[in-house]
Amino acid sequence: MTTEVVSPSLIPTLPGHTYVSEDIFRAEQEHIFEEMWFCAVRTADLEKAGSFKTVQIGRESVLINRTRKGEVRAFYNICRHRGVKLCMEESGEANRSFQCPYHAWTYDLEGKLIAAPNLTKMPDIDRNEYGLVKVHVREYMGYVWVCLADEPPSFEEDVMGAIEERLGDLRAVDDYDIANLSLGRRIKYDVKANWKLIIENFMECYHCATIHPELTEVLPEFADGLAAQYFVGHGAEFGDDIKGFTIDGSEGLDRIPGVGDDQDRRYYAVTIKPNVFVNLVPDHVIIHRMFPLAADHTIVECDWLYLPSVVESGKDVSASVELFHRVNEQDFDACERCQPAMGSKIYAKGGVLVPSEHHIEAFHSWVTSKIADVPADS
Amino acid sequence: MTTEVVSPSLIPTLPGHTYVSEDIFRAEQEHIFEEMWFCAVRTADLEKAGSFKTVQIGRESVLINRTRKGEVRAFYNICRHRGVKLCMEESGEANRSFQCPYHAWTYDLEGKLIAAPNLTKMPDIDRNEYGLVKVHVREYMGYVWVCLADEPPSFEEDVMGAIEERLGDLRAVDDYDIANLSLGRRIKYDVKANWKLIIENFMECYHCATIHPELTEVLPEFADGLAAQYFVGHGAEFGDDIKGFTIDGSEGLDRIPGVGDDQDRRYYAVTIKPNVFVNLVPDHVIIHRMFPLAADHTIVECDWLYLPSVVESGKDVSASVELFHRVNEQDFDACERCQPAMGSKIYAKGGVLVPSEHHIEAFHSWVTSKIADVPADS
Amino acid sequence: MTTEVVSPSLIPTLPGHTYVSEDIFRAEQEHIFEEMWFCAVRTADLEKAGSFKTVQIGRESVLINRTRKGEVRAFYNICRHRGVKLCMEESGEANRSFQCPYHAWTYDLEGKLIAAPNLTKMPDIDRNEYGLVKVHVREYMGYVWVCLADEPPSFEEDVMGAIEERLGDLRAVDDYDIANLSLGRRIKYDVKANWKLIIENFMECYHCATIHPELTEVLPEFADGLAAQYFVGHGAEFGDDIKGFTIDGSEGLDRIPGVGDDQDRRYYAVTIKPNVFVNLVPDHVIIHRMFPLAADHTIVECDWLYLPSVVESGKDVSASVELFHRVNEQDFDACERCQPAMGSKIYAKGGVLVPSEHHIEAFHSWVTSKIADVPADS
Repeated sequence: MTTEVVSPSLIPTLPGHTYVSEDIFRAEQEHIFEEMWFCAVRTADLEKAGSFKTVQIGRESVLINRTRKGEVRAFYNICRHRGVKLCMEESGEANRSFQCPYHAWTYDLEGKLIAAPNLTKMPDIDRNEYGLVKVHVREYMGYVWVCLADEPPSFEEDVMGAIEERLGDLRAVDDYDIANLSLGRRIKYDVKANWKLIIENFMECYHCATIHPELTEVLPEFADGLAAQYFVGHGAEFGDDIKGFTIDGSEGLDRIPGVGDDQDRRYYAVTIKPNVFVNLVPDHVIIHRMFPLAADHTIVECDWLYLPSVVESGKDVSASVELFHRVNEQDFDACERCQPAMGSKIYAKGGVLVPSEHHIEAFHSWVTSKIADVPADS
Repeated sequence: MTTEVVSPSLIPTLPGHTYVSEDIFRAEQEHIFEEMWFCAVRTADLEKAGSFKTVQIGRESVLINRTRKGEVRAFYNICRHRGVKLCMEESGEANRSFQCPYHAWTYDLEGKLIAAPNLTKMPDIDRNEYGLVKVHVREYMGYVWVCLADEPPSFEEDVMGAIEERLGDLRAVDDYDIANLSLGRRIKYDVKANWKLIIENFMECYHCATIHPELTEVLPEFADGLAAQYFVGHGAEFGDDIKGFTIDGSEGLDRIPGVGDDQDRRYYAVTIKPNVFVNLVPDHVIIHRMFPLAADHTIVECDWLYLPSVVESGKDVSASVELFHRVNEQDFDACERCQPAMGSKIYAKGGVLVPSEHHIEAFHSWVTSKIADVPADS
Repeated sequence: MTTEVVSPSLIPTLPGHTYVSEDIFRAEQEHIFEEMWFCAVRTADLEKAGSFKTVQIGRESVLINRTRKGEVRAFYNICRHRGVKLCMEESGEANRSFQCPYHAWTYDLEGKLIAAPNLTKMPDIDRNEYGLVKVHVREYMGYVWVCLADEPPSFEEDVMGAIEERLGDLRAVDDYDIANLSLGRRIKYDVKANWKLIIENFMECYHCATIHPELTEVLPEFADGLAAQYFVGHGAEFGDDIKGFTIDGSEGLDRIPGVGDDQDRRYYAVTIKPNVFVNLVPDHVIIHRMFPLAADHTIVECDWLYLPSVVESGKDVSASVELFHRVNEQDFDACERCQPAMGSKIYAKGGVLVPSEHHIEAFHSWVTSKIADVPADS
């Protein structure tokens, strides 16, 4: 038995224990999900003043809401008094404030402490200092990104930079006008696998011929095993007889006006670490957001976005949704089937990457460097 | 973000991790529940010789029974031979002995080994030494208190002392004649929260106006946020138009004869660490016993006790039971809503106590001192 | 409270924590189940080329199959590429190969890598080196035994030696012709107890009078508490009015031809560490295989084997199966009732063994020595 890699065709993956260790996962929560910009909710889901969503980011519950001025704010979802979880629901509407159901400490939509029993008799309490603890917020591409770090990293480098690195420039965000598209469908997947397996899966197409018959029918070049993400700026071309990015190659929906002829009939995919996949086709955009909950458990929320006129008209988007929904199910099944072997002694040094997967090594190096920052005594 | 407490109105709670750490909980099991007097069962539940109950105390299952002489004994619920759990049921009737179902080692109701296959051929076995392992027992206020420590602490100081400290003297136990009351209702609550949150909740009334509308209707002074436990000897007075301690303020049951006029129309509450709450009103007594099972899981058993004549006559106690049953549900809901935030990084130093909660600090100091006894290497 | 053993009649068992500690269990997985010969599947269950079974051994999933040459091979059930669990089912039929469902790496029934997308473009990949990782295999007594150690211990000493040590010689395996018997019934038991409790239970008969009324009816000497395994070569004799090894002592099935008159009307039991019990009676053989899954969880698979002519004729084996099925249930109930007390502080030093159980001490010493091999830093 040897797992030494001696063939130039093959390079090693991460060691198996990095996919199962709860210690590694805790380090990833601390140094990746809780320190980076994390794509949390779709901006349009916060419809009006008081609309809120709660999301789990790393080990924290985060409360994101729209203020009366129409801005988006995010806070730790915890009352400052005795630690009650303020909002239990995944989404809802606050009227003018958030009131803790235990002792009625009350915060306005900006997070300021505005009322509490006997508060007037405790004038020394600074209502801002004892307001909800804020987290950093950015709106981009129609989504709210939050960062729990005290000093957030550069959004331009980390988020926008990932798009530029993959597509060559940021035009796509403008061309596909993502922020102004409408939600046609949302599906939530409960995946019993490590988040890194899901990213690795999205980054390579060596598996496409085996598990994605419908997708390779639409994108014949995928059958060769080279992912759309392999070459800067490259989008995989539709097959000759394919009319749209649909389960059966039938006509898609209305083309997004900004999509240029060079982008037409092509599929582009972008990975924005640590939790987002962007998929661009002429008539819609598919956004995956991952929510890693445990070393072997990840929730993936997937949005299918179309022109507002398409969604409002009630056009049938099923054939369009069905294609990537099936791809998702095929991919997540594969990831779930990897997970149980990660702890085996013969996978202690990991598996191997073939040449068309070698670019995943950059992801592995990145994860390793993030976790390497952990001081030995933490 | 800062959690430094600078306002004199506010003092800190225990750090958040003390409510979620299984290591802390293990230390609490070892140094609190397994070393202190623990209120286990109601004496009257052991009706006759051979009646037994089993209860979980710390990490141990304890078997409590009534002997043929009518006395109460308690043992580790474990056969001395190969470790079988002797009694699986929560309660039952042994005839004259406890027989292990595996190899038939048999113990009398005093715990002595009285029979076993081939025992006569093993004359060197001392039947007392290989009897059931005893735990210390005291009967008080109609309940059996047990202590798993080799050298129990002073029952007079710890248990009786808690009553004296709260009420000024031990008269209540005589006046309300608790040991001779009858059980009108028993409700068991399964609470997904740390036992300390439940004690803290019981000790303060700052939350009463927010979550206990029925209780504050009956006890108007509770709306101010000062708990009955705040002043030595004080009992909260019923509202003017309140006829009894019932869900709708209607007439209660027959007044306990020993209750003096100074105690009439008043509610007294006492916390006896580590697991008992006593609630006194003119016509009944409510006793809570907590059974902490995990850092985030506690069973609470609550007894409503009335004059034997009330229970025997079959009078309807529902309006009376309903009031504190609802209070229990409101309180335990609040505790369950605190639990998930205890592990948050912004709760690492804990929350804050307002002036009407400051007395809880004594409980925090007590817990801390109990756990501080743990040597670093244990 | 003392657990010092001062009576010569009594010797101590293993300490209680060895039955509950997940660290101890991990050491047992590593140094016992993953290093010894482990009885995995019945050879006849691999009917033809491509038939496979998967079994959990220690922390590993093992894939066992029959090759086109009719031989049995065993592998770690993991694709060498990215770690997918190759076969999810407990049993099935592969056609000519095992193909990974993720990227289609394909292995022949000998484990050799025979195909993969683009494999021809990666000529530096050695198809044997990247074949499935083999585990050692032996066929004996109609079962496939596997060993995950790089250097397996002596099968002759460990497996055959255990039979010789118990029965005096290996004749039984020939006399009862176990490899050529047919499966009459298989029952799988899910036992919530440590595997060592199950072995200890099988090794002694001090419990027989208490929990096995049917068995002691058939084997009267068991009522005295001496197990069949107590004396080398001894088989417990059927009672005078017993016609067969059946639930009601009624006639059994056809006697196995090789069984000699000295073996007739007798029951022999053999323990083959770490996971097999063999039970011999004139007309059938009962084989238990244990699969320890956690410190407190063990699967036991029990096979009742008869002459092929008996099974083929469709004769009713129920009265025969029912006897030991009931014994199994009685034993496993007892083991499950021991498990919860193993963590008690009064069982920290363990329980005691009476003289008719003293031979279990050898098993305890053996376990202790196996785990003692664990270096302090592992």
